This record gives sequence, structure tokens and C-alpha cells, in this order.
Amino acid sequence: MGRHFLQIPGPTNVPDRVLGAIARPTIDHRGPEFARMASELLERLKDVFKTRHHVIVYPSSGTGAWEAALVNTLSPGDKVLAFETGHFSSLWCEMAARLGLVVDLVPGDWRHGADPDALAERLTSDVAAVMVVHNETSTGVRSRVPEIRAALDRAGHPALLLVDTISSLGSMDYRHDEWGVDVTVGCSQKGLMLPPGMGFNAISQKALAHRGRLPRSYWDWEPIIAANRNGFFPYTPPTNLLYGLGEALTMLLDEEGLPAVFARHDRHAEATRRAVRAWGLEVLCADEREHSSSLTAVLMPGGHDADALRRLVLDRYDLSLGTGLGRLAGRVFRIGHLGWFNDLMLAGTLSGVEMGLAAAGVPTKDSGVRAALAYLEGAG
Amino acid sequence: MGRHFLQIPGPTNVPDRVLGAIARPTIDHRGPEFARMASELLERLKDVFKTRHHVIVYPSSGTGAWEAALVNTLSPGDKVLAFETGHFSSLWCEMAARLGLVVDLVPGDWRHGADPDALAERLTSDVAAVMVVHNETSTGVRSRVPEIRAALDRAGHPALLLVDTISSLGSMDYRHDEWGVDVTVGCSQKGLMLPPGMGFNAISQKALAHRGRLPRSYWDWEPIIAANRNGFFPYTPPTNLLYGLGEALTMLLDEEGLPAVFARHDRHAEATRRAVRAWGLEVLCADEREHSSSLTAVLMPGGHDADALRRLVLDRYDLSLGTGLGRLAGRVFRIGHLGWFNDLMLAGTLSGVEMGLAAAGVPTKDSGVRAALAYLEGAG
Amino acid sequence: MGRHFLQIPGPTNVPDRVLGAIARPTIDHRGPEFARMASELLERLKDVFKTRHHVIVYPSSGTGAWEAALVNTLSPGDKVLAFETGHFSSLWCEMAARLGLVVDLVPGDWRHGADPDALAERLTSDVAAVMVVHNETSTGVRSRVPEIRAALDRAGHPALLLVDTISSLGSMDYRHDEWGVDVTVGCSQKGLMLPPGMGFNAISQKALAHRGRLPRSYWDWEPIIAANRNGFFPYTPPTNLLYGLGEALTMLLDEEGLPAVFARHDRHAEATRRAVRAWGLEVLCADEREHSSSLTAVLMPGGHDADALRRLVLDRYDLSLGTGLGRLAGRVFRIGHLGWFNDLMLAGTLSGVEMGLAAAGVPTKDSGVRAALAYLEGAG
Amino acid sequence: MGRHFLQIPGPTNVPDRVLGAIARPTIDHRGPEFARMASELLERLKDVFKTRHHVIVYPSSGTGAWEAALVNTLSPGDKVLAFETGHFSSLWCEMAARLGLVVDLVPGDWRHGADPDALAERLTSDVAAVMVVHNETSTGVRSRVPEIRAALDRAGHPALLLVDTISSLGSMDYRHDEWGVDVTVGCSQKGLMLPPGMGFNAISQKALAHRGRLPRSYWDWEPIIAANRNGFFPYTPPTNLLYGLGEALTMLLDEEGLPAVFARHDRHAEATRRAVRAWGLEVLCADEREHSSSLTAVLMPGGHDADALRRLVLDRYDLSLGTGLGRLAGRVFRIGHLGWFNDLMLAGTLSGVEMGLAAAGVPTKDSGVRAALAYLEGAG
Repeated sequence: MGRHFLQIPGPTNVPDRVLGAIARPTIDHRGPEFARMASELLERLKDVFKTRHHVIVYPSSGTGAWEAALVNTLSPGDKVLAFETGHFSSLWCEMAARLGLVVDLVPGDWRHGADPDALAERLTSDVAAVMVVHNETSTGVRSRVPEIRAALDRAGHPALLLVDTISSLGSMDYRHDEWGVDVTVGCSQKGLMLPPGMGFNAISQKALAHRGRLPRSYWDWEPIIAANRNGFFPYTPPTNLLYGLGEALTMLLDEEGLPAVFARHDRHAEATRRAVRAWGLEVLCADEREHSSSLTAVLMPGGHDADALRRLVLDRYDLSLGTGLGRLAGRVFRIGHLGWFNDLMLAGTLSGVEMGLAAAGVPTKDSGVRAALAYLEGAG
Repeated sequence: MGRHFLQIPGPTNVPDRVLGAIARPTIDHRGPEFARMASELLERLKDVFKTRHHVIVYPSSGTGAWEAALVNTLSPGDKVLAFETGHFSSLWCEMAARLGLVVDLVPGDWRHGADPDALAERLTSDVAAVMVVHNETSTGVRSRVPEIRAALDRAGHPALLLVDTISSLGSMDYRHDEWGVDVTVGCSQKGLMLPPGMGFNAISQKALAHRGRLPRSYWDWEPIIAANRNGFFPYTPPTNLLYGLGEALTMLLDEEGLPAVFARHDRHAEATRRAVRAWGLEVLCADEREHSSSLTAVLMPGGHDADALRRLVLDRYDLSLGTGLGRLAGRVFRIGHLGWFNDLMLAGTLSGVEMGLAAAGVPTKDSGVRAALAYLEGAG
Repeated sequence: MGRHFLQIPGPTNVPDRVLGAIARPTIDHRGPEFARMASELLERLKDVFKTRHHVIVYPSSGTGAWEAALVNTLSPGDKVLAFETGHFSSLWCEMAARLGLVVDLVPGDWRHGADPDALAERLTSDVAAVMVVHNETSTGVRSRVPEIRAALDRAGHPALLLVDTISSLGSMDYRHDEWGVDVTVGCSQKGLMLPPGMGFNAISQKALAHRGRLPRSYWDWEPIIAANRNGFFPYTPPTNLLYGLGEALTMLLDEEGLPAVFARHDRHAEATRRAVRAWGLEVLCADEREHSSSLTAVLMPGGHDADALRRLVLDRYDLSLGTGLGRLAGRVFRIGHLGWFNDLMLAGTLSGVEMGLAAAGVPTKDSGVRAALAYLEGAG
Repeated sequence: MGRHFLQIPGPTNVPDRVLGAIARPTIDHRGPEFARMASELLERLKDVFKTRHHVIVYPSSGTGAWEAALVNTLSPGDKVLAFETGHFSSLWCEMAARLGLVVDLVPGDWRHGADPDALAERLTSDVAAVMVVHNETSTGVRSRVPEIRAALDRAGHPALLLVDTISSLGSMDYRHDEWGVDVTVGCSQKGLMLPPGMGFNAISQKALAHRGRLPRSYWDWEPIIAANRNGFFPYTPPTNLLYGLGEALTMLLDEEGLPAVFARHDRHAEATRRAVRAWGLEVLCADEREHSSSLTAVLMPGGHDADALRRLVLDRYDLSLGTGLGRLAGRVFRIGHLGWFNDLMLAGTLSGVEMGLAAAGVPTKDSGVRAALAYLEGAG
């Protein structure tokens, strides 16, 4: 009974208004009403990515948008430079390798973001693209994309910059054009507060000019851009999710406004970290400059299984937390505090974790909820 | 952004499933599909009231069901004995007077339930009916209906017993038949987790036999009972709310089960009282035997305006609390913890009150949230 | 499979948008957001009734609004003059009698509206109110309210004029103020395209001044008007239906516009009558000036049971038609063509009737569908 | 006003129940509740394809499922044999070529299905796969897949058989296993009555064993099959569309039953063809054995623009028809009669076309609606 607390780092809680919107009757995707809607949406999406160029919408998961970023810009055998910042950066690299690219992976400890200095060292002339995950969903670590850009600029290197914003888009400040990103990868089910089913590519003029030779058809930007000019798509678009997108953009851009959205996420992230510290636990992210504002990964003390805690809070408090992925399995749980979220939802979430820790016999120092409330109250 | 916390003592948070059900297309209320649905609903409603006799469904608010209870059973000039347990018991008496009844009101301090001893004293032979509010929504005080019944029985008095369960039905143990109640008044928007728009009367055989002479048409039980036999209504029923009722009954009766529903409400009420005491504030209900399990009314310390607090938590934390009604205006705020509700929703609610008290400058002793969590954790 | 055709004369097909609106989360009916919404709705409702005075909203069926019209204005023993125009006019009179009024009923043949000449003859000085059903839902006959008003004016008689617009409001031209009506009775589930659950009274200054002495509480206008001033209600309003009302008013008043709404209903009614005549059947309404635009009642040829036809089209074509009520049982079926409706829905409806007549062995002359399409095509 | 008639051959009218289902709150796609749901759905989907092997679900359009069929089974430079049966068969071939395959295209006149005899002639030993569109959405022509299979068997040729059932799945009889198909391509927004956003591959054991060397990652069956074993997906699945799928499968498999679903579509297709012939127009499909049961393409008489007719019926009757695609542009309009559909919806649709033809000045012989009703009435 009562509302489920879906506090994984995505899919996030979908607003009732958005759910109501996606339940509207499907219309003809080749008719005038659709064209008007899609034209407006494609234009407004640019504000989310902070770009004046194209944003591509795919019926796909975010993983599909990863693939699209690679197959549109690169050729078989191209070298990509990537950073091992966590589970998802590794998966993206695996994908690149499967598609026939050569991956140069800068190793990492899964507690830091992409290292601009390492980039400078590894940036050989044959690097065709640099792949960075802006906000590692598996670790709660944010990479400093502007510093990566600066390193590329200092080197005067023409490599494309491909950035994954899957769990930061619409939650944390991000600037496709200003930061000189060539392809930004995003999806629907995180900060945009939608169900899963849409992937996005924001693309620079440079990326559009630099078409690779990897085989592609579904993901090919060109026919999409051509059809989008009139508000259409080369194949059937996910009409009902687009209805939801319209509602979500109204909420994010028109009603709350992106600066307030970002400030809200920053505030909840800080409150969460204070709770973690009050419990005497450790935040996985090891660099103060790199904390994610959309999720917090928490290290379990030795001898305690994070997944046992997750099962317990799900059974007892109907709270879903994120699991530890890859090498972090069992050692980390992740609290999603992004999307359609507010102070009392956070208070409920942290209360669930606090009661769960007690029930799981994890020793804690102090009340994390109290620390979080004290911060929230002061930082209204 | 994020979900509103609707913690007034009704309307309560309506489950998504119930909202989804009421959005189903309206059907012909004189057709076979409707008849099957209504017949089943009317039967299952009996389990909620714990009666084997009739339950009447009105398109109305609970206030309408109050009126129905009176106009069906009483005649002009009849004397009714009532108890001043709070704002709503007073309103019901005002209604009785307006309808031409003579009200003998046992005065009260709004901190206690109906007094069985006072009943015995005041029970003159001309009393046609005794009116009791089972759970005073304005005060969070529960009247001990079985003791009222026992007092009537001891006196061998034939008065009808009319009981308002508006804010207890489906949240707190209630037994129409076993407790010898003649008319039970209920509504949709509290423990039944529905939007407002339906009122109920459960009626004993004795009440049905004892028809009064007050003029009535819309509220008249007889044509309704006659039509209900075939699953129909004498006038257009609130079809879409009935859809929601079906879903709510599935959740309450089949999935959670009424004993678990009541235990959950008891547990949340106790946690709330512990929070109130930890803050150093006073629960309005003055008798340990009479605490409501669906809401808690809290006295504000002198010099602090309860409505100012309510406005503050609404503005800052998107939390709706109940106002002080009638003579309690400004002195009391009410926390609804009934309906579709769980531990983390309660934690969020109490967190909002706790932050609100701090922001409003109300001095508190200790963290109520922490006290509540400690209880919830132990009393899982 | 496929969409049900709900072509009874109400409840009508509810637009998806309205169903979506009523599925929004219920809010605090004493909070500022509710007050803003209700204030606006109460103001906009006046445009539907074409009044500048009060419109009262009840959580009730239309039958409740009937009762409200009587108990607010009349006193025990008052004489009301009414017209036997069909089943519902008779029911309203029965209600009046049950409430203690004396009914003078002008007899009728259920094929004509209220007769202004008969009014003049029967209008004795002791008549307190005249009751007229604007659009008899059981017969599809419209009474000429302005001529009734004119007859009252010619007689210089002070009787109140009470008019039922249950199945015409929002479908057929109606003017509370201009036509000098004192109380107009309406409801949600017909022309307003909402689920059942709300009743309305529009009231003139004269009616408001002329308070009767019938006992009343739930229906009493005064506390409602007082609370409405600030956007509130004296008891819990049907919040979710009010959400739907907002959406429906946007569609009717802002998007299509009432003149177009009325023209659409007139057009569909004429097309339906042409279909009936093409089949060689008889429209029940016997006066060309009095055809309803929201429904058409059709006489079955002797030896054929209208209800057998209705069952057949429901089973075979998933089409609900209205039954013959009261003395018309079995002799008449009614086609509702009001509310959220368009040409192709009408074509589907008439096709269902046409196939049903064939399947039921009712001899027909020509294709009614073809006649209707020919008219619709020409009268676009 | 009134319901839009979405009679393009997909997306189709989505049942309210399915829309309601997709509006349920998104859940954790790595949690136990999701695993239970997905395991059951994946099992039940097999009944739709009539296979006992794997069905793969993609967050994608049907076009994505086309690509998946190719990249999983074929290697660069592989030769595929295809049939020019219409616009979509051509697009699928273009995709194959873009992905690096060599396409041998059997030319066609867009009025016939894939020719089993031509297959036999063209089937050289280097053909790796045969691509057939079961139901050409652009022409309303059905290819006789069992005869294609028989031709392959007669030749004893090991080529894979890839079949597109985009607009026939769930509407027309189809048997993946019995017909010896290796990969069947389907999608959500046609016969399955869902919004767009999901693509499907049903795959034979042979196809699974025969993995090609085209680069693939997102579309790769293997990680999906591995994750599906436990009810999970390698990347975020389209949870809310899966909710809808569950509801749609209940309607198709449990309530109506596939044989009745197919019979309904056959019946509506025959009624539509009778209407077309009554109008004196020509059905595009030229072979009686190859009529589609899910849509009918109609040739416009010379001198009349099909798209002008489509615009007219959209503006005037709120009816969406399918456009002529590719070489049929302006010469053909298509009536979709698949999915959530019934007799009266068809009657409304054909009425809209009939009135539109008249308004567009297209000469017609007789009433198509009447011919259709006569057939429907007799063939109940």
C-alpha cells in the first residue's frame, strides 16, 4: 500500500501529468497535427541540450543512442580514446569494439571522472574520437567535460568529442555547444522524467560533416534530419512518448526552469551526502569536484552485502535502490535523487535507507535523515 | 516538482490504479455489464461495513449520507441525542435541527469521544435516535461505539443508533452488525482511497423497518433497495467512481486484507504520536483509549498560529495538512495518515512537519522523525 | 473488440481528454489551488447556462438537482403546475408530491412538449411554481420554454419557472436569463460530456429571494453561495469531476464554441430523423417545432419489441440504445446523438440500427444510413 | 469533436485499456516484479508468432526489427533475394544494401505478392537469405509465405527465410514455426493495438545457430536471450509499452482468441472490398488469393488525386486514411481496418470515404456503405 519509492538512478518517478499525456490516443504520424507537434518538440529539445544544432530522437533505449553516436561518425578500425570511469563507460567501450573500432581505454578506479591530464598524455594523432561519460550512473561521479574540451583544444586535436549524458541530462548543468561537444547521447527515462523508450543524439556541425563509414541504416542521422525538416520521421516515431516529452519539457523549461531544476538536484545531492556521512558511511565518488547531483553511490562497510540491504528495503519499505554494477556488485548501493523529486520524497527515501541499515545490522554513527533535514531546512 | 503530500484527513491520496479505473469509459447504467458490476460491488461493500444487510450508495458527499440517515429514519420533531465531540458532530446536529429534529447535545471539550455514562444519564424515553461520530475528523478522537451500544442495551432503550464513520471506514476496525448500529454513514474519499463523490449508508433491519416521516425523495432508501436487487439504481449512479470503488475494494479486501489495513493504520498513528511527543507538542486527544488511527490533531504551543505553519509547509514542502476547525481554528493542525499510505510516505510527512516547525520558529524538544523511525523500524 | 457505441441519451461518450483530467490526483479542497480552480469554473459555468447569476454545483445526480430546485424555493403544501411530457416530467412530479407539494399536472400524450396555451388555462393564482422539462429525455421532445415564459408574462403571474435541462444543457440552445427562468436544473453526464456525479442549479435573483420553507440542508443554496465566494464548498466537492468539467468547458466554450456545438447537434438530429423516415419508421415527437437535437425516440412498428432490438444491437454491434421508459416500454427505442459526437460516429450508430432492424426482421423501406449520409454530405 | 477515426494501416486505434495500462508508474527494470512480468510476456508473445522458440523485444520501431533480422544473421557481402512487392519491400532492400549486403530484387508491379515461381528461378546457390514481406502495408497485398517455403524446400536450398509481418501480426493468420520461417519481424503499433515503440524478432533455432558477421551490438540477439532467461534485458526495456503489451495480449489471446481475431479481420476486409466495388473503384491487389485482411488499398480513378481526398476526409470527417507511398503517391489511398476495430467503426470509416468521394467529385456507382452493411449483416 502507498506509493512505491523508485529511487534507482533511472527510470525515475514519472509525473502523473506525463503518464496522463502518454495515455492520449495515438495519431497519424504522417498527418498535420503530428508535424506541428514534432516540429515544436524538436526545437524545444535543443534548449535541454543547450545546442542550436540538431537533436535526433530515436525509438530506442539510451544504449541505442550510444550506438548511433558511433556508427554515424566513425569508420571501421578507427581509434577511440575512452576512460574507465565505471560500468557504463566500460559497456560503451565494449560496444565500440564490437562495432569494429579500436578502443584505447584509460584505466580508472571507478571513483573518479575522466582525467583531463591523462587525456593529454594518451591523445595520439590517430585518435578519431574521445568518449566521455558525463555522469557515470554506476558510480555517481561526474566528469569535468569542459576540462576535457580544454585539453583537446590545447592539443589542437581534431578528435570528435562524444559525451554520454544519460543520467545527467535535465538534472545537471550541461552545455552541448558551449562545451564543444560533437555528439551528446541522452535518453528519456532519467532527468527527463519519462518512461524508457527514447534515445537522443545532439550533434554538432562538425559531427554532421564528419560522417564515418560504419554501416548504418536505422541510426543514420541524414534521413532523420531530412524528414524532421517537415516534422516527420523516416520510420514510425514513438508518438505516445513524444506526448510525454511535450509535457515534461513544459514542466522543466517553462514551469520550473532549468536553473531551478539544477539547483534542486544539487541541493538534494548535498543533503544525501550529508546523510551518508552522518551514518558514517562513505560516498563512492572520491573527488569533491566530481560529485553527481543525480545519484549518490554509497560504499557498504566490509562484511555487509549491499544487495541484501536493497532486498530488505524493497520488501519492508517498498523502496527501490540501485544495485552495485560490475566490479562494485554487492559493495555499493546507489540512491537516485533525480527527476520528479522533492524534499519530502528525499526525506522518505533516506528514512527508508536509515531504517534498512538498522534492520540489516549495519552500524551507523548518527541519523542521516536528521543531517539531511537540517541541511534542507537551512538551504531552502 | 515531485509528488504532493496530501496529508489532510481526507480526501486522501488516491492510488494510481484507482485513478486509472475511474478514467475508464462510462457505460450504460441500465445495461447488463453495469448490472453485473454493481451487484458485485454492493455485495462486497458489506464486508467493509461488516454487515449482512443493505449498503446504500449515493452520488453525494458524506454530508449527503448524513442527511440520508436522518430523513429515512426520523419524523419531524423527533428528539435525537448527540455528543459534542468536535466540529463535525456539531455540524451533523445543525443539520438535524435544520431538518426539523430536536437535538439534545451532550456538551464536550473536543478532546474526548462520546461518553457512554453521559448517554445513560441523558437517555430519556423520547429519544428517537442517538447520533455518534465514530472518528471525529476535526479532533482525531475515536468514540467507543461498542460501549455506547452497551449503554443503550443496559437501558433497554429502543433508540436507533446512527454512527458517522466518515474518516474511519476502511481505516479503523468497525463492525456495523456486531456493534448493533442502525445506520452507518460513510463516504468515498477517506479510507476507501477514492475521490470524493459517493456517500454510503449501511442500514440494519430495524432501521429499515422504522421509516420516519421526514420528507425525502433523493435519499429514500426504498426505491434504491428495490432497484439494487437487479444491480440498478433509480437515478444515474456515479459510474466512474464505482469503477474506482471496485479497484479500491480489491486492494483493501483481497490484496492487503482489512486486518492488515487496520494494523497499518494503528502503527502509523502510534508512530505519529511518538513524533509529536518527541517534538514536545501535545496530541489533542486526551484519552489513551480514544486515539484515532487515521489522523492526529496536534496542539500548537501558545503564541504560534497553526495555519501559518500549514501555509509554510504547503509553500515550502508541498505538504497539505488539515486546518483547525471551528473553535480549534489556528490552535490545531491535523496530520492525516490514512488511506493509501506507507512508512516512507509517513516519514516524508513528519519530515515536512519537523522542518516546518523549525522554519516557523516553534521550539521543539527532539526529532520527531527520529522517534517515529525508531518505532517503525522496531514495529515492522 | 473495438470501441463501444454508447448512444443512449446519456451518460454520453466521455472524451479521452476529460477522462484523463478526472484521473488527476485529488487535491485539498480547502487549499489555494482548489480555490483558484473552483472560482474559475463557477464563473465559466454561467456561460453554459447563459446566466449572470449563481450556478450551484452538487455532488449528486441530476435527480438531486431536481430536489434542490424544489426544496430551496417552495414550502409544504405549495401548488406546482407541471406538464406530462414524458417519463421524466412524471418522475419530477412524483418527487414534488413526496416532498409535500401539491401537483397540478397538465396531461399529455408523450409526443408533445409543454403547452403554453394549457398553461394559461390552468394558471390559478395559487400556483407557486411552474415545472417544465426543456428536453424530455424519454421522448425526444423539446418544450418551447420562451413561449411558456411569455404565457406567464401575459398572465402577469408571479410563479417561479423551474426548468429541467438535463439532456439539453450544452447540446441545445438554452438561455436562463433571457428566457426568464428561475431555476434551471442540469447535470454532468449528457451534453457536458462528463461522467455522472454532478448536478447543477442555475438560479435567478428572484428565486434566491424567494426561499421556501421545505426542510433542507444538503441542498441549501445559501451556505454554498457563501462558501463559493472564496472558491470553496460547505462540504467536500467532487474534485475529480470538477477537473473534468474544466476540460469539457474548454472544449465546448473555447475550442468549438457553443453556437457551433448547437449547430452540430441540430445537424445530427436532422440526419437521424431522415434516417428514421427512410426506414419508414416514425419519430415519436409529433410537432416539427419540438424536435430534440440531442436524442431521437423512434416508434417500433406494431408487433416488434423495441427492447429485443436493443438487446440484439448490443450483442451483435456493441451499440447501446436507450430503452422505452414508462408507458413507452417496448414500443420505443431512443438514439442519443449528443455530447462528444461527430458525423462518422453517427454513421456508425445508424448503421448499427439499420443492421439491427434487418436482423430483427423489422421491415424497412429504404436505407436510413444512405439518407443520413446524403444529408450530412450536403449540410457540411 | 467526437472521436478521431484513425484508419491508416497503423498505428491503429489503441484500446482505452491499453492506454490505461501504459500510464501505470514505471518500475525498476532490474527488480523482481519486472522479472515476473517480462518472463510471462516473453512466453505469451510466442503464441502470437506461433513459435516455440525465442521472441526478441526491442525498444525500436519495426524498422529497427528489420535491421536486427539482417545484422544478426548475415555477413558483409552476403546475397539476399527479395521481391519488389511494394514500398516497404523496397525500403527493406535499401536497408540491406546500406548494411553491405548484395540484393537480388525480383521486380514486381506492386499489385501482387512474392512469386514462388520466380523464387525458384532466381534461387542461386549463393543466396544467403530470402526476404519476404508477408503483408505489404503499401499495397494491401499478402504474400503466400507457405508457398515460398515450399519452393525453398523443393530446391533443398539452405537460405534463411526472413519475413516481415509488420502489418499482419495479430491480424492475419501467421505461423512462424509451421511455415519454417527463420526470422519474423514485427512491431507494436498495428495488429497488437499498441502505440509505436517496440520491434520484435521471432527466431528459429537455425537462425540462432547461423550468426552472421555484420557488426552489431544494440540488435545482438545473444545478450538479450541471455538476460531474458531471468526476465531481464541487457539495456533498459520500454517498461510502459510492456504494460500495454500485457493488456493487449489478454485481449487478443485470452478474451477474443486469435482465430476469432483473424475471422474478424477477414470479415472487415471482405466488407471493405465490397464497398470499393460498389463504388465502382478498383482494389489495388490483383490476385484474389492475396488480399490483405488488415488494409485495403484503393486506386483512384484517373484525374483524381488520392491525397486531395485524404485531406478532405481529414478536414471534414476527422478520418485519417493512408497515403499512396512511393510510385503509388496520389494514385492510391489505403483504408486500415485492423487492430481494435468493429463493425460500426468500419461503417463509420466507409461512410467517411463515401461522403469524401462525393465531396471530391469522384464519380461512384453505388453506395459502398450499403454493400458493406449488407455483407456484415449477413456474415455476422
